[in-house]
Amino acid sequence: MSTNIRPDIALASHLFDTLREKTFDGVGVTREAYGRGEEIAHALVRAEAEKLNLEIQVDFAGNMYMTLPGTDRALPRIILGSHLDSVPQGGNFDGAAGVICGMAVVAGMRQAAFTPKRDVTVMAIRAEEGGAWFNGFPGSRGALGSFLPANLANLRPDTGLSLEHHMRELGFDPEALRTGRKVLSPENVHAYVELHIEQGPVLDAEQIPVGLVTALPGNRRIRAGAVHGEWNHSGATPRGYRHDAVLAFAEFAQRLDSFWGELEAEGVPLVCTFCTLATSDQAGFGKVPGEVCFTLDVRAPEPATLDRFYVEVERLAAEIGKSRGVTFEVPSRQESKPTPMDPALREALRQSAEVLGIGHKVMPSGGGHDAAAFAQAGIPSAMVFVRNQNGSHTPLEAMRIEDFAEAATVIADWAMKASA
Amino acid sequence: MSTNIRPDIALASHLFDTLREKTFDGVGVTREAYGRGEEIAHALVRAEAEKLNLEIQVDFAGNMYMTLPGTDRALPRIILGSHLDSVPQGGNFDGAAGVICGMAVVAGMRQAAFTPKRDVTVMAIRAEEGGAWFNGFPGSRGALGSFLPANLANLRPDTGLSLEHHMRELGFDPEALRTGRKVLSPENVHAYVELHIEQGPVLDAEQIPVGLVTALPGNRRIRAGAVHGEWNHSGATPRGYRHDAVLAFAEFAQRLDSFWGELEAEGVPLVCTFCTLATSDQAGFGKVPGEVCFTLDVRAPEPATLDRFYVEVERLAAEIGKSRGVTFEVPSRQESKPTPMDPALREALRQSAEVLGIGHKVMPSGGGHDAAAFAQAGIPSAMVFVRNQNGSHTPLEAMRIEDFAEAATVIADWAMKASA
Repeated sequence: MSTNIRPDIALASHLFDTLREKTFDGVGVTREAYGRGEEIAHALVRAEAEKLNLEIQVDFAGNMYMTLPGTDRALPRIILGSHLDSVPQGGNFDGAAGVICGMAVVAGMRQAAFTPKRDVTVMAIRAEEGGAWFNGFPGSRGALGSFLPANLANLRPDTGLSLEHHMRELGFDPEALRTGRKVLSPENVHAYVELHIEQGPVLDAEQIPVGLVTALPGNRRIRAGAVHGEWNHSGATPRGYRHDAVLAFAEFAQRLDSFWGELEAEGVPLVCTFCTLATSDQAGFGKVPGEVCFTLDVRAPEPATLDRFYVEVERLAAEIGKSRGVTFEVPSRQESKPTPMDPALREALRQSAEVLGIGHKVMPSGGGHDAAAFAQAGIPSAMVFVRNQNGSHTPLEAMRIEDFAEAATVIADWAMKASA
Repeated sequence: MSTNIRPDIALASHLFDTLREKTFDGVGVTREAYGRGEEIAHALVRAEAEKLNLEIQVDFAGNMYMTLPGTDRALPRIILGSHLDSVPQGGNFDGAAGVICGMAVVAGMRQAAFTPKRDVTVMAIRAEEGGAWFNGFPGSRGALGSFLPANLANLRPDTGLSLEHHMRELGFDPEALRTGRKVLSPENVHAYVELHIEQGPVLDAEQIPVGLVTALPGNRRIRAGAVHGEWNHSGATPRGYRHDAVLAFAEFAQRLDSFWGELEAEGVPLVCTFCTLATSDQAGFGKVPGEVCFTLDVRAPEPATLDRFYVEVERLAAEIGKSRGVTFEVPSRQESKPTPMDPALREALRQSAEVLGIGHKVMPSGGGHDAAAFAQAGIPSAMVFVRNQNGSHTPLEAMRIEDFAEAATVIADWAMKASA
C-alpha cells in the first residue's frame, strides 16, 4: 500500500480561477440552481472530466457523475462530491470546492497511473442552496429517491418559475423525482465523502486546516414568532399599566441566551439565533409597542438538545407572558433532523490525516449539507471541512489553497486505500 | 361669592356629537391641521360663539379667540382652551374637549347672567398634533411668539405641502411667525387653563374623574439608535464567536427596564419606551443578525431624571458593547423640556374641586400639550385631566360625558372666582 496519490492542486487552482471568472456577477459569484451559473460550472467541470477521460453520466435530476472506472465494476462505488450552485453574490468555494477536490483526486490517480478496484466517481450535485433557489435538495435527494414531490412546485425567487419548469427547460425529468426513482443506494455506493469549507470561524481561530465532521445538525425553527402586547401612549402610560411587546421580547431573548450559556457550559452543542425581529407596522414614535414579530433558528446535532431547548422556549414564553400581560406565539417546527456521519469512515479519514501529519479537528457541522441526504439513505458518509475565512454566503468568503490541498490530500489518501 | 356657574353640558354634548359626525372618516375622526377637518371644527365652534354673542377674533396663526367681555377690559384675561386638530383616524375628545369645555363654561356664565370683571376667552388653538401634521406647535407658540421659524418649511405628510403653504392658503400670515410677533404674554393673560383627556389609564384604573396636573414632561429621545454587530452563518458560528446585534439589544433593553424599575421603586417618575425596533434589511433566515435599529422615547417631569437615565443608557451601551463585541449608537437629543404647571393655580383648582366634592388626583402629565408653551412664556398655566378610556390617538378613545362635566364644573367654579 503506497501513499503516492497526490491531488492535482494546479488543476484545482485553475478550475477555481476559471469558475470565479465565468460566474462573477460584479460583486461575488452567482450560480443559479438549474440556471445560468450552475450550467456554466457543470460545463466547465465536464470539459475537464473529458480531458481526464472519465466516464460521464447525467441523471434525471441533472446531477453529473464523472467516473474513474474500477477493475471490478460490480463493486459499490466511492463518491466524492458536493454542489455547484451558489447563493446570489456568494463566494467561489462553497460547494464547488467539494467537486473540484474530487477532480483533483481522480486527476492524481490518473497521474499516478493508479487503477482503483471499485469505481471512484466525482459527483456534481444540483441545487443545494435551498435558501436561495429551491428547498428540499432536489439534486442529492433526487438521486437518492427521497425528494418530497410537493417541492417541485416551488418557485425560484429570481424567475418566479417552478423547479419543475426549470428542470424540464434543461431537459431533465421531474417526473422521476415525483415517483421517487433512485439511482443511488447503499447497494451501489460504498461511501460518500464531501469536502466543504467550514463556513464558520472555528478552524481559522484555532489555526487548524482540516475538520472531520461528527454530525450535521438538525434544526427546529420558529418562522412566525410574535409577542402581542398592548398599544398605548408612550407618555401617558405608567410602567405598571404597560404590556410592552419589545420589553417582553427583550426579557425572553436575554433569558434564552442565558440558558444557551448554561448548555454551552455543560458542553452541549447548539446554536440559537433570532434571525429577524421587528415591531409591526402600527409602531411609531409616541406609542408603547403592542406587537413584535421574530424568527428563531435553533440547530443542534442531537434531537434531545432541540427538545430540551424548546421546553425552555415554551416555559419562558408562558412565564414572561403571564408576568407582563402579553401573549407569546412560538410555533416551532423541525425542518431537518440531526444526522450523524459514519464513525468508521471518519476514523479512516482521521487515520489518513494522522499518517500524513495534517492538522485536524473532530467537530460538528453548523450548516446542513447534501451529505445528510446520503447518510439518511443509509450510505456511509463523511464530511471534511477546510478552514476558511469570513464565513460563507458572502463575496468576502475566502479559503487558502494550501488548506484545500491539505484536506484534498487526506481524502486522496483515504480514497486510494478504500478503492484499492 | 356664589357657586352657581354650571357649565352647559347639553351644549357640550351637542357640540361633541356634531363634531364627530362632521369629521368622521369611516374609522375615527380626522381633523387635519390647517386643513379640512380643523376648518370644520373651527366653523362649528365659531357658529356657537356667535349664538352666545361672544367677541370673535382670529390671529395671524389662525387661532380663534371667543371672548365674554369683562367689565374692566384692561385687565389681563383668562384663557380656557385647547386644540381642534386630531390625528388621522383619531378620537373625538383629544383636544376638542378643552375648547368645548370653554364654550360650556362661558355659556354657563351667560345663562347665569354672570358678567366677569376680566375677559374670559375661549381659545381654539391650531395644529397641536405634531406627530401627525406639523411639529413645533405653530398655534400656541405662534400666538406666544416662540415658534421656531425653521418649522415653517415642514411638510404635511398627507399633502406634501409646507406649513407656510397651508397657512397662506387659509389666509393666515406665516411671516408673523417668522418674525416672532406675539399676541399673548403675561401682560395680557392672567391664566391659561386647559382641560384635556388624560390619554392614559391611571384615572380610570383608580376610579377618579379628574386629574390636576403638576408638570408636563420633557423628553430626551434616540431617533436613530443602532447596534452594530457582525453578520455570520447562523449554523456555523458557535456562541463564543458571535457578535449578535439582537441579543446585545435584548440585554440592553432588559437591563434598562430593570433600572427603570429601580427608579419607579424610588418614586422617581419617568417613562421609557422602545417605540420601534427592527433588524436591518440584510437580515434573514440563516444569518446571525449584524445590525438592529431602534428608537427610544424617554420622558420625565424633572430634567435631572432624564440626565440620570441617560447616564445609565450610555453606561450600559458601553459595557454591553464591550462584553459582546458590538457597537451601540445611542445619540439622544432633548426635544422638549420638562415644564411645571403653576402651583398656585393648581391649588385654586384643587380647592374648587374640594368645595364641590369632586374626586380628583394630583398627577403628572405623560404627554406634551399646548399648556407647556404658555407656561414657558411665563403665563400661569394649569391642566385639568378628564378620566378617559382606551388611551388616545385611536378611534377607540372614549370619555364619559359625566366625567367631562365634573372637570368642567371645577373649571367653571375657578373661572368665576378668578374673573369676579
